[in-house]
Amino acid sequence: MTDKQKKAVVLLSGGLDSATVLAIARDRGYACHALSFDYGQRHDVELQASDRVAHALGAVEHKVLSLDLGSIGGSALTDMAIDVPNESTEGIPVTYVPARNTVFLSLALGWAEVLGARDIFIGVNAVDYSGYPDCRPEFIETFEHLANLATKAGVEDSGFCIQAPLIHMSKAEIIHMGIDLGVDYGLTVSCYQADDQGRACGHCDSCRLRAQGFAEAGVPDPTRYHSQHS
Amino acid sequence: MTDKQKKAVVLLSGGLDSATVLAIARDRGYACHALSFDYGQRHDVELQASDRVAHALGAVEHKVLSLDLGSIGGSALTDMAIDVPNESTEGIPVTYVPARNTVFLSLALGWAEVLGARDIFIGVNAVDYSGYPDCRPEFIETFEHLANLATKAGVEDSGFCIQAPLIHMSKAEIIHMGIDLGVDYGLTVSCYQADDQGRACGHCDSCRLRAQGFAEAGVPDPTRYHSQHS
Repeated sequence: MTDKQKKAVVLLSGGLDSATVLAIARDRGYACHALSFDYGQRHDVELQASDRVAHALGAVEHKVLSLDLGSIGGSALTDMAIDVPNESTEGIPVTYVPARNTVFLSLALGWAEVLGARDIFIGVNAVDYSGYPDCRPEFIETFEHLANLATKAGVEDSGFCIQAPLIHMSKAEIIHMGIDLGVDYGLTVSCYQADDQGRACGHCDSCRLRAQGFAEAGVPDPTRYHSQHS
Repeated sequence: MTDKQKKAVVLLSGGLDSATVLAIARDRGYACHALSFDYGQRHDVELQASDRVAHALGAVEHKVLSLDLGSIGGSALTDMAIDVPNESTEGIPVTYVPARNTVFLSLALGWAEVLGARDIFIGVNAVDYSGYPDCRPEFIETFEHLANLATKAGVEDSGFCIQAPLIHMSKAEIIHMGIDLGVDYGLTVSCYQADDQGRACGHCDSCRLRAQGFAEAGVPDPTRYHSQHS
């Protein structure tokens, strides 16, 4: 990293999409400050995966912020009383975490302002977006507008740019791009209910989208599944 | 509280403005769910004050969420290496916490969605706003727009309303309204560097605005100052 290298904050979940985004940001020449959240998700294997990915893809720094979204509740991903479904459902699923991307982008914005970064990368995707409203292009555009009203840097200096390079890509296209950029998807964990060794269930929405992506991309799937997988 | 009573989430800091907002929300008939943050501020006297205020003003519930803004840094309010200034300065002050209101409103939005509340009250003020960009009307309007794009409830159900009833009021007007609504300002702490008994410094921006407000309102100032106050 040189003094002149532009900085970016990259939201990193440990999954396939955000790993690809980190590789894209690095490829575009940014010094990448990766940001993950310990938000009461079911397993910390996601956080272990995000740390492996951050190191493998040369992030300058990887910060994990604690955030007690579980005490707000309302999602199968943070509330142990709600089961993760094994079948696809219509509409917005129970794995939706209320306002999650708004919260994550807000904290990324605060950190970007402190770092002097003006670019924030997020791996949202409107194609395979699983019915989450905060993955749509109009959400990202509106957040960028908000960021430039909300902050000292947005008001006094050049504005923030929220970069969502995957937003219009299929899962197969994302996988092809990541492989071209050297992403090892074996390091990533996408499953909503992975076991404590990071092995996937193979049944949840996230597993199904991921497996379908590798199949459509014609690429061997490096995902490790646990024994219940059929 | 009856089943038909509308719920609101009210952001509560322990200071004068948010106490007044809680009184206004109660006066408008809402069942108030107060939300405060333990975000690495210099003293937890703010949190003790917010708890006293929540109880005194009949909040249904008072939730304190932990949020490690200190690890992001960049503000005199969360970073012990930056002094709180005793003189007013031009522009956006060092007490500005990057993206604070964006982060707080995002978490309030998530909780409101889980509760089934559609109104979120915040005590921002554009008159005495101390140069914080995230206290301006256009910020609040844009956040409301974002809230209705970002959430399941905003997309599938009636939208969210971000209520900022103090935004165009002077500090003296706020104090008059609060007194009319039964707020005991002796319970509140506004000082950026209160001592561990909640006594104010009398010198920081927040103390000066508060003292001036009581003077202009022609109301006795119930603030307790510590011994260094002159």
